[in-house]
This record gives sequence, C-alpha cells and structure tokens, in this order.
Amino acid sequence: MTRGYIIPIGGAEEKISDRAILKKFLEISGGDEARIVVIPTASQLPETGPCYVELFSELGAGQSISLPFEERSDCERKDWLDILENATGVFMTGGNQLRLSTTIGGTSVAEMLRDRNNNHGLHVAGTSAGASIMSEHMIAYGAEGIVPRCDMVSLAPGFGLTKECIVDQHFQQRNRLGRLLAALAFNPRQIGIGLDEDTAAFIDSNDILEVVGSGAITIVDPSAMGYSSMDSARPSEPVTVIGIGLHILADGCSFDIPNRKASQYPPPPTS
Amino acid sequence: MTRGYIIPIGGAEEKISDRAILKKFLEISGGDEARIVVIPTASQLPETGPCYVELFSELGAGQSISLPFEERSDCERKDWLDILENATGVFMTGGNQLRLSTTIGGTSVAEMLRDRNNNHGLHVAGTSAGASIMSEHMIAYGAEGIVPRCDMVSLAPGFGLTKECIVDQHFQQRNRLGRLLAALAFNPRQIGIGLDEDTAAFIDSNDILEVVGSGAITIVDPSAMGYSSMDSARPSEPVTVIGIGLHILADGCSFDIPNRKASQYPPPPTS
Repeated sequence: MTRGYIIPIGGAEEKISDRAILKKFLEISGGDEARIVVIPTASQLPETGPCYVELFSELGAGQSISLPFEERSDCERKDWLDILENATGVFMTGGNQLRLSTTIGGTSVAEMLRDRNNNHGLHVAGTSAGASIMSEHMIAYGAEGIVPRCDMVSLAPGFGLTKECIVDQHFQQRNRLGRLLAALAFNPRQIGIGLDEDTAAFIDSNDILEVVGSGAITIVDPSAMGYSSMDSARPSEPVTVIGIGLHILADGCSFDIPNRKASQYPPPPTS
Repeated sequence: MTRGYIIPIGGAEEKISDRAILKKFLEISGGDEARIVVIPTASQLPETGPCYVELFSELGAGQSISLPFEERSDCERKDWLDILENATGVFMTGGNQLRLSTTIGGTSVAEMLRDRNNNHGLHVAGTSAGASIMSEHMIAYGAEGIVPRCDMVSLAPGFGLTKECIVDQHFQQRNRLGRLLAALAFNPRQIGIGLDEDTAAFIDSNDILEVVGSGAITIVDPSAMGYSSMDSARPSEPVTVIGIGLHILADGCSFDIPNRKASQYPPPPTS
C-alpha cells in the first residue's frame, strides 16, 4: 500500500468558520467512515484532546477518540495501541514539540505511526508542534529574524515520517525565515517548509505538496546553494548563504518535492 | 569620467566605535582632500546635519558642510548649488524619504546629484531614508512581514541614481522581506537590496556591490520568476511568487548586479 498523506499545519487552523484544513484531512481519512485518533501530548491543557474529538465529530467523522499519552509507559498500553493500529487518520495537536519527542520518541507509538503511515496508508496531520515533529530533523526552538546566525536554531530528532523536508510553523507570524535558513545551512540536503498559521501542506505519497488555507507556505530550496559560512561565522555575525531558491505559495498552489518544482496549480490527481 | 559610487546604508550605522562604513565612504571621497556635503533634509532635527559634519571632520575630512534644504526654493540657491557642484562626496541622512522626495525632487539639487554622480564621479551615500531615495523606484512606506500582499507597499519616484535596484533598509530589524517581494513583484525587472542596520552596499561604477558592516544584505533576485499572483490576489490574501533567488551576504561578500552573481569574496579591483 502507498504511504498515507503527511499534513503539517502552521498552527491556529480555523476551527469555527472556514474549517477547510480540518475538513480536507477528515475527507482524506474517510469522512463518515474515518477512524480519527487525536494525540494531544504536546499540549499541557486537559481540554485540548476532547476539543478536537468534538470538532471531528461535528464535521462528521465516523469515529474520533483522544489518546492522551502523558508518560512514556502510556505509549506501550496494548488497548491504546490497538486503537491506533486501526486508525485511518491521526491528528497531533499543538503545544511543545519537545514534549512530543521526549514522551513518545523511541516508543511503540512512534514506531507504529511511522509504520502505519509509510506502509499502510495512515494519514498523519499535526498542527504547530504537531507539524514540527513529523520530519526526521525537527526544529526544537530558535530565535526570530530574517537573517540566519549560526546559534539561532536548535535541531532535535523528530518522528521521521519524512526525511525530505524541515518544517517550521507560525512562519509569517513569528518571523522565522532566519532560523529555517540556519537549519538548512547545517546541511543543504532538505527542503525547508515554512507554514503560516491556518495553512497546511498536504503532502501525498509521491511527495507532491498542495497548499490549503488562508496564509502562505514559504518553500526554501537550498539545493543550488553555492556557499554558506555556517562553519565559520561567529555567533554574533550573520551567516552568508548564496544561491537559495525561494517560493511563496498561496492556497491551491503545489510543490513537487523530488523535482523541486513549484507551480501555481494544484497537483495532478494521483494515478 | 566614470560614475561615482552609490552607497545605500541600512540606517543606524556605527558612529562611535567601529565606524567602518563612514570611514570607507570618506576614504573613497578623498580623505583629507574630500569635500563632503551633508544633506539633512529627511530629518526634522536641527542637530542632524551638524552632527554628521562634526563626525566627518573628526574622521579627517578635508572639508565638510551641511546644506539644510528645507524648502523647495532652497534647492535653487546659487551659493549652495556651487558648494554641491564642488563636492567629492554627498551624504544624505535618515528621517523620512518622502520629505527628501517632496522637497528636493524635480529641483536643481536633484538634477545636479544625478548628473555629478553619473557623469563626474561624485560619490553619493545615504542612510535609511537617504538610502531609499537613491533608486528610481523608492519604497515610500509599507507593512511588516515575510509574506507579500498586494497592498503591502507603496512606491514613489526616487532620485533615480540607479534603475537597477530597489532598496529597503532596517531590513532585518523591521522584518521587511514581504514588502520588498511585493515591490519587486509589481515588475520583476529590478534587483531587491535589503540592508540591515549598520550595513552598507558600496556599488561601484560597474554595478558591483560590496557588503560593509556588521549586519547582512539580503539580495532578492526576481529575474527567474516563473509566476506571481500580484495582478489577481485580493488585499487580504498572500501573493504567490515562484522562482525567487535569495542570497544573504555578510561583510566582505559581493554581488555583481548586471550578471546577478553573488560571491563570498570582495569584488576584484576596478581596472
């Protein structure tokens, strides 16, 4: 079976009026036959899980349940793993991505998420912290600003659903181009995906990304980078980066990650 | 005679400790044989002109004088035009660039600045507002943010020393990538130059730019832009821009404007 969708969301997705992102995630996951699991671990608020469960029920989900993994031992509970194994869509809430990685990283839940997504078509969405955690290299924290500095960003291992991109969120709202450039300059192998609030990247099994939402996605492509001073700049100095490709994409645009090609049109239907 | 240097500065250049930018401008203009004219028109503070005059004297300028053009009629004063005509370097202070354009635009001073710079080797530097005014298309004002919107920036005609670039200043400090992208998306003919504070672009007669200062210069190259939605996006929506080239350059790097080529090295000496 092909890989399920990977759907990072930039945080603050619309929950009341135009719920385009949550609706599309639910539709992809099966609509009235969907079995949605909410993972509220990043949040410290007890109402976060139940709030999303209610939202997905309102939108017509077949089933919707929150699995509040709070301790690492929760991530080995057989009853919860059974529910997760049968899910068609998983939604990870916002909060602190380090809480996701320190609680779930290296457990059966993380292993099952990767396996079900990669090999069994499970669709995985996450907002804010839940978006950061998806990729192999996760931005744990960093500073604001346009210009990269070598001490501006801290990476940590994420859940590794994809190795093709590094995701950042609240991108426009928190002025995060510099820290994404710094993360990419460490090793210009990946694509940078900067997600505005209320904006999602629907990444299909062919790694074609579609933009959905009211903000923009900033794609930072370092594949043609000719030089960076990341290895030599001092902490107080700007890091020079030469030859970055930049695309800013609004709702309906797409980006072909393997071929590094942006388009103003939606992706072609998958065959 | 070749064109003089054009030297936009991002504002807040160091005036006390490491005055690298002001020193280099003075050196190019002749050092102890330089005749510097300060134009404080953008500023509303009476001390701005005298302050720079004193600074250039301290740094060893042969002569240094402030010409406080306050009214359009001042810009036709024969005695002041004579002084301007004999200057080797002109320095325009910060303040409000619309005060520069509304007071000096279309007068003999503006005409003389262009002619002396383009045809007689006069070097022209300007900081903040004094940087914005230099190019043909000037950013008059705009909003903050990374993502461009179609109503985010207002252009006005500048002094037109160069048609090759649009300059923005306080770039990192005031989060101005979005408005520079919006300005370029109107007509992707020019190069965008985003100047951080205490950072200058020394643009020589061959339009090779050298970075001097403690911040960075962000070069935004729209020449390979494949698409933008500038003509169709609604005011509240992000503008899609596809295929932007981005370079972030620290002190000592250079950019060849005609060939659109960034380098981590300084420009070769002019023959």
